[in-house]
Amino acid sequence: MTMRPPAEIGMPLDEVDTPALVIDLDAFERNLRRLSERIAGSPVKVRPHAKTHKCPVIALKQVELGAIGVCVQKVSEAEAMVYGGIRDVLVTNEVVGRQKLRRLASLAQTARVGVCADDESQVRALEAAAGEAGITLPVYVEVNMGGNRCGVEPGEPALQLATQIADAPHLIFAGLQAYHGSAQHLRGWDERRQAIAQAVDRAGHTRDLLARHSIECPTITGAGTGSFEFEAASGVYTELQCGSYIFMDADYGRNLDRDGAPTKAFEPSLFVWATVMSRRARTGRSSTPASRRWPSIPDRRWSATSPPRPKSAPPTSTAGSPSRPRPTGLASAARSG
Amino acid sequence: MTMRPPAEIGMPLDEVDTPALVIDLDAFERNLRRLSERIAGSPVKVRPHAKTHKCPVIALKQVELGAIGVCVQKVSEAEAMVYGGIRDVLVTNEVVGRQKLRRLASLAQTARVGVCADDESQVRALEAAAGEAGITLPVYVEVNMGGNRCGVEPGEPALQLATQIADAPHLIFAGLQAYHGSAQHLRGWDERRQAIAQAVDRAGHTRDLLARHSIECPTITGAGTGSFEFEAASGVYTELQCGSYIFMDADYGRNLDRDGAPTKAFEPSLFVWATVMSRRARTGRSSTPASRRWPSIPDRRWSATSPPRPKSAPPTSTAGSPSRPRPTGLASAARSG
Repeated sequence: MTMRPPAEIGMPLDEVDTPALVIDLDAFERNLRRLSERIAGSPVKVRPHAKTHKCPVIALKQVELGAIGVCVQKVSEAEAMVYGGIRDVLVTNEVVGRQKLRRLASLAQTARVGVCADDESQVRALEAAAGEAGITLPVYVEVNMGGNRCGVEPGEPALQLATQIADAPHLIFAGLQAYHGSAQHLRGWDERRQAIAQAVDRAGHTRDLLARHSIECPTITGAGTGSFEFEAASGVYTELQCGSYIFMDADYGRNLDRDGAPTKAFEPSLFVWATVMSRRARTGRSSTPASRRWPSIPDRRWSATSPPRPKSAPPTSTAGSPSRPRPTGLASAARSG
Repeated sequence: MTMRPPAEIGMPLDEVDTPALVIDLDAFERNLRRLSERIAGSPVKVRPHAKTHKCPVIALKQVELGAIGVCVQKVSEAEAMVYGGIRDVLVTNEVVGRQKLRRLASLAQTARVGVCADDESQVRALEAAAGEAGITLPVYVEVNMGGNRCGVEPGEPALQLATQIADAPHLIFAGLQAYHGSAQHLRGWDERRQAIAQAVDRAGHTRDLLARHSIECPTITGAGTGSFEFEAASGVYTELQCGSYIFMDADYGRNLDRDGAPTKAFEPSLFVWATVMSRRARTGRSSTPASRRWPSIPDRRWSATSPPRPKSAPPTSTAGSPSRPRPTGLASAARSG
């Protein structure tokens, strides 16, 4: 069967098939520029996390506006990015299993593809795959910043693993991944600041320990949409992995800024355009087949320039702000029907 | 880029790329047979809901074992089923919008495709689309059974809509959809029994009202995995829409049976085969990129015949039962990498 895209270029909004993901391109580009503005003066580079969009077109736009490359979560995402034209990709996770390692090494023949490790057995498997493919693979030691998911502990354990990587013939020690995921959605500005201060201590201490053992640490990568300003100002981190800032979402929108008010650092730019399929006049009930993940935008947002057709719902947004302009561009991702 | 399937026929489990959805075919087929056994002696027919699997191969297996066709949630699912060989499909929702109605009517040129309505404007739109396509479309009046999502109220409102459908040249009044969704996960057996007793009253009352106005009601369709035994025994419902019974899930597994114990009507047959990508010996932490939707099965389930390779996780299941046999068949659905 053929899947038709829900929209074509130039199509008016009320002809777009639903459900459709709709990007407000102006807001999207403002978000990209705002990140650059917020870190102006800091030497950190931006390597946005592409798990937010998984879309090479968007990744290329980020690179065009200054990103040095992107992050991805897994090998298949790295493949999508490299085949889509991105030349520098970091897999921000461990990769396990012979098939995936072969794909990773094969991909690294055509682009710079970095990967994380937090165990000696992984380093051995990465070395074997890189050797088999005849490449040299950049490997980052993932350090546990307190999220207690992946990562070796800071200090000695990180030194041991970095030494093993540096000694492997087909691997290059590329730096530390020091992402503090569990700090991103701490509500208070000062809570996040303190959590990142600890991460900075741990990462800096580890970097200095490596230096004392003559292992240079060219990159310390981490940070997210909730905390990037702290890593950018730290003097320790060299690279930011923010992803959600391009679209924002409801939960990041509830983070408080320095002034105690919900953050205005970025604005929602991704919306779901949905159709109400049933509305009972007597009860005021309505049903839509679209996801409930996003809160609704009040009707009035849309009524000025684009009155909803009967039975058609206003778009729902990732952050529920009532005062955004209507979308000026479209990107389709949702399966229609 | 090419997406490789995570498994091929005959491949041992430990060569399957992860994440992969794994079906225990024996358990799956037992579930299909158990539904038939549970309703043996009742005249109701089975029209399983294909939203559970969205897979024509599975739908064909259900038809082979006695189902008269399948239900789907929306037009694109109906297309997948018809193009996959299913000859009788019911869209258990309202369909809104010219594009989707055209696709629906076009599909009804090659298979029996029914659809629900709960508003006069929908009936007019369905009539227009069916007339344009030169077909006659079976339309069901959806009746609100208490879930307060879609559906007209029982009695007079249903009669009005059925009359409008019966009078439309290109539509056939096919019956009532009387699905009581909010009763399915009521925990107690008696709670569910009472909720369905009310639904049976409403549906039966509406059917009798239609009969007094010379409108025959050939089908009353509804029921789910949590309640089907009550609808089957009602003498009012003629068709069951159970879907989840083929795989079961953790929440249905918490429903209590007549004896007060968690139901044993069906068994979990769908599992996620995942790989642990990081495991810190000191803390016992482990991380997997697979979904958290399903609870884990204890290790011992797998260790007897298929010891997990290092860094490989036991499959996680939809119901967490510790005593199931290992999978004997494989079906892939997850994106690998």
